[in-house]
Amino acid sequence: MKPRVAVMGATGAVGSEFLKILEQREFPMRSLKLLASIRSAGKKLKFAGGELTVEELTEKSFDDVDLVLASAGGSISKQFAPAAVKAGAVVVDNTSAFRMDPQVPLVVPEVNPGDIKKHKGIIANPNCSTIIMNVPVWPLHKANPIRRIVVSTYQAVSGAGAWGLWELDEQMKAYAAGKAIEVKKFPHQIVNNLFSHNSEIGDDGYNLEERKMVLETQKIFHAPKMLITATCVRVPVMRAHSEAINIEFSKPIGEGEVREILAAADGVKIVDDRAANRFPMPIDASGQDDVLVGRIRQDISRPDGRGIDMFVAGDQLRKGAALNAVQIAEML
Amino acid sequence: MKPRVAVMGATGAVGSEFLKILEQREFPMRSLKLLASIRSAGKKLKFAGGELTVEELTEKSFDDVDLVLASAGGSISKQFAPAAVKAGAVVVDNTSAFRMDPQVPLVVPEVNPGDIKKHKGIIANPNCSTIIMNVPVWPLHKANPIRRIVVSTYQAVSGAGAWGLWELDEQMKAYAAGKAIEVKKFPHQIVNNLFSHNSEIGDDGYNLEERKMVLETQKIFHAPKMLITATCVRVPVMRAHSEAINIEFSKPIGEGEVREILAAADGVKIVDDRAANRFPMPIDASGQDDVLVGRIRQDISRPDGRGIDMFVAGDQLRKGAALNAVQIAEML
Repeated sequence: MKPRVAVMGATGAVGSEFLKILEQREFPMRSLKLLASIRSAGKKLKFAGGELTVEELTEKSFDDVDLVLASAGGSISKQFAPAAVKAGAVVVDNTSAFRMDPQVPLVVPEVNPGDIKKHKGIIANPNCSTIIMNVPVWPLHKANPIRRIVVSTYQAVSGAGAWGLWELDEQMKAYAAGKAIEVKKFPHQIVNNLFSHNSEIGDDGYNLEERKMVLETQKIFHAPKMLITATCVRVPVMRAHSEAINIEFSKPIGEGEVREILAAADGVKIVDDRAANRFPMPIDASGQDDVLVGRIRQDISRPDGRGIDMFVAGDQLRKGAALNAVQIAEML
Repeated sequence: MKPRVAVMGATGAVGSEFLKILEQREFPMRSLKLLASIRSAGKKLKFAGGELTVEELTEKSFDDVDLVLASAGGSISKQFAPAAVKAGAVVVDNTSAFRMDPQVPLVVPEVNPGDIKKHKGIIANPNCSTIIMNVPVWPLHKANPIRRIVVSTYQAVSGAGAWGLWELDEQMKAYAAGKAIEVKKFPHQIVNNLFSHNSEIGDDGYNLEERKMVLETQKIFHAPKMLITATCVRVPVMRAHSEAINIEFSKPIGEGEVREILAAADGVKIVDDRAANRFPMPIDASGQDDVLVGRIRQDISRPDGRGIDMFVAGDQLRKGAALNAVQIAEML
């Protein structure tokens, strides 16, 4: 029987993307309920040629719901996901609330679909930077276990939510008009600038975004000892994250072998035209389901042949969030 | 005796910066001659409260010149530097023309000032990304020899020259006006996007900019076997390059030791406020002489304690080009 679906946080950046993807993929469902804070209740959103009215999210929202796609922030998920589960629904949660909970599967469908069936009502969707790295890295790890990853990110403002898109837009317009650039929610100017990811920094100097990339990848890959270091940076790009990934494998691996593996991998598209200087770019990744991979080359700093460098770009709102969650729901 | 100075390529992005820096530092000189292509001849440029007229660059431009600061492109340097040397001048060349010539010293004053005296008429100024990495990395290498570096860059459009600044500016204005974004000299849209550095790509998959970071660093550090891999990326930032640098040392090294070394290093300013989430940013590095260094942390992917991660930002036009060249000239 087709499920009755609710989208929690329907008016946010990922929420809007949920609606687009459910529509595009003709996700089989009996009903669709849009939930958001009381501020957005009553707002009408377009869906599949019609219109749906946003309802206020309460603990009673889930009585007629089988599947919840949640992306309203970690604290909202912590508050409402248990009520949804109690009401008999399964929650695919896009927030960080339950990701590291050992009871909750953390799933990238191309990597660990088998973990879905272990769920106890909640399945967590990984952080966007993690998903975008995991999709191309997993098939390589399967072929030749990875020892260590050094990753640097170039993250779009969409990762901060709808307000991030708005703030970069406003700042670009102020720049063009020669007006003073107002910094509102980001900690620093983002137009014509970049800054270390504005998440909390731990005692070891890593910020939360970097920690997510490390710990979530170890959990998703079932590789708790995989060595990973990450530097996460916000750049003035609207949507689609990019990442420079340096990988050390257990055994020597050739550039050609990497290409073959990636060409056959799910969710990956190779964009690696050296003659035309065309490689993964955010504007090409935006709106795409696949993670673009290019700049594939043997790492010259590893004469033992165990190193590969590559550069990836993936749509942060789609594969990095909403699409991955809907794919999980489809597998359910 | 104070030298008679000529600036080759006076109307370019680095050329303009040469004039600013000569003025700010009250560089001792008897005369200053501005040279450029015939297209710019006759143009008047401000200097030290007065005005100077740009002259056409010819092989006869150097009869009354002792010091040439060159930044008019590699082919122009190849053509005219020998004439300048023949006329008795010393050329500090900011182009890539002679950098890897074993007869030509390649100098970052904070790193290898001793190499200056080996010159035979030409001293090469390294590539901007190289200088910005070398200034903070060298004092660490002196304390604990570096085995391997993995660097990812976030390079400003100023690195492409004055037209790069113009093109990003035009594209930001088109974006703000809701007009179509015109791609003129860059290979791809740069506003709201980023792309792999648009330099020629070798058979090994590394582009020229990356090769420069590797080979120039090895030459400047007198460390031909130092292992380095680089991924160079152009981002929509006006000036100042940023770099995420992962370093593997020979021996274990602590974060505190790195801080102490960098605090005492020339040309480096530590910007590393974890509580305030303030780290090196292009807008803070722009117009500054120092390379900003932050995000200093023990690399968690190296349990042997031999890894350090850091993030740097430096003004590409100043320390990355004109300032470094003027510092070399001062040492001469």
